[in-house]
Amino acid sequence: MNEVEIKLRKNILAKNEEIAAHLRELFAQHRLMVINMLSSPGSGKTTLLEKTARAVGHTLAIAVIAGDLQTERDAIRIRNAGAAATQINTGRGCHLSARMVADALPNVDLDAADVLFIENVGNLVCPASYDLGEDLAVVLASVTEGDDKPAKYPTAIHKADLIVLNKIDLAPYTNFSAERFRLDVRKIKPTLDVLEISCTQGAGLQSWFEWLKTKVEQKQALH
Amino acid sequence: MNEVEIKLRKNILAKNEEIAAHLRELFAQHRLMVINMLSSPGSGKTTLLEKTARAVGHTLAIAVIAGDLQTERDAIRIRNAGAAATQINTGRGCHLSARMVADALPNVDLDAADVLFIENVGNLVCPASYDLGEDLAVVLASVTEGDDKPAKYPTAIHKADLIVLNKIDLAPYTNFSAERFRLDVRKIKPTLDVLEISCTQGAGLQSWFEWLKTKVEQKQALH
Repeated sequence: MNEVEIKLRKNILAKNEEIAAHLRELFAQHRLMVINMLSSPGSGKTTLLEKTARAVGHTLAIAVIAGDLQTERDAIRIRNAGAAATQINTGRGCHLSARMVADALPNVDLDAADVLFIENVGNLVCPASYDLGEDLAVVLASVTEGDDKPAKYPTAIHKADLIVLNKIDLAPYTNFSAERFRLDVRKIKPTLDVLEISCTQGAGLQSWFEWLKTKVEQKQALH
Repeated sequence: MNEVEIKLRKNILAKNEEIAAHLRELFAQHRLMVINMLSSPGSGKTTLLEKTARAVGHTLAIAVIAGDLQTERDAIRIRNAGAAATQINTGRGCHLSARMVADALPNVDLDAADVLFIENVGNLVCPASYDLGEDLAVVLASVTEGDDKPAKYPTAIHKADLIVLNKIDLAPYTNFSAERFRLDVRKIKPTLDVLEISCTQGAGLQSWFEWLKTKVEQKQALH
């Protein structure tokens, strides 16, 4: 980036922080736990949210804002799983911004929801720089992407409060090493937990649901 | 994006086109086939380039410019496979620009190479907007990312001259439908071929090598 680009990027990020701060305040007023979900395309964000809605939707009211360049597919899938869902289409935009989330909020019933998932655009780079006013960021990775991803996308890892490692059922068919993956994660953020799951086979999902319930309770207990 | 952002984006892209045009001229002078490789993180770009270098490196002189936020890992892997490789680290940058490629060129022997692969940052969004002076763009997708990716990332599909669909050996363990994938590709770009391969098992690689040799010959025949 040249100097003009760097300056503009700083301005854009500063403006984003400002809107994110307003969002955070709004979410706090509604006792709403907000989770920003980051991953590569196809790591399984929507599938995880579907499974979550089906499994714990009767005790936790789940709302989802789903970001994608094009298509309503994710929102439709999530609605079919019983959760409230709003789609944002970013066109050529490679990340959600606080402004986009703010613009989508009239479609979200903040009082009815216990947890709001913001499913970011499938991209491990830019979403890591944009605060959406969330309480927590979850990075979803998958075994089939390879164990070198934490080292290559340290900004996303650094932002994460939990890493969910999906598709562990496919590990036997790949050369993925969970040990290498975890080692690189620890180098970037030693305190960060890695939760191994398989959305299709069900392994680890119970731990994910429990993590989620605990976080929602912690947020609600604050008030 | 607001008006200022849109205007700046246009300026950045116009400047990029200008540098890309210079690159294209330079590559033509050297009779060099240049291929821009786009994919999500972990689709297998580096593995495909390793396999290619090992299989056809004795008849085709291969050079690679590998883009990543951080680490030299890809360049090292490719060098170990016998091809010349230069790493670009973009820091937080989510795509390569023509300027970054131009800056890396002093490290590339343009006369010695028959084909230059530019391995873009793992990201299906922004790399699709930045011309690098390449002859052809190859989008690598993988079965484990899901069959909905063409519909969700139409800009990348539209830019592509070939889609290589990797990890077909894992298809039996997923709900991936090659038919749905191909149908969505055809809707965006009816002329676009989809080449199914498995880098780990070897399926389809011979067709990829043949495609590559044909393209290199076509470029060299122009002069």
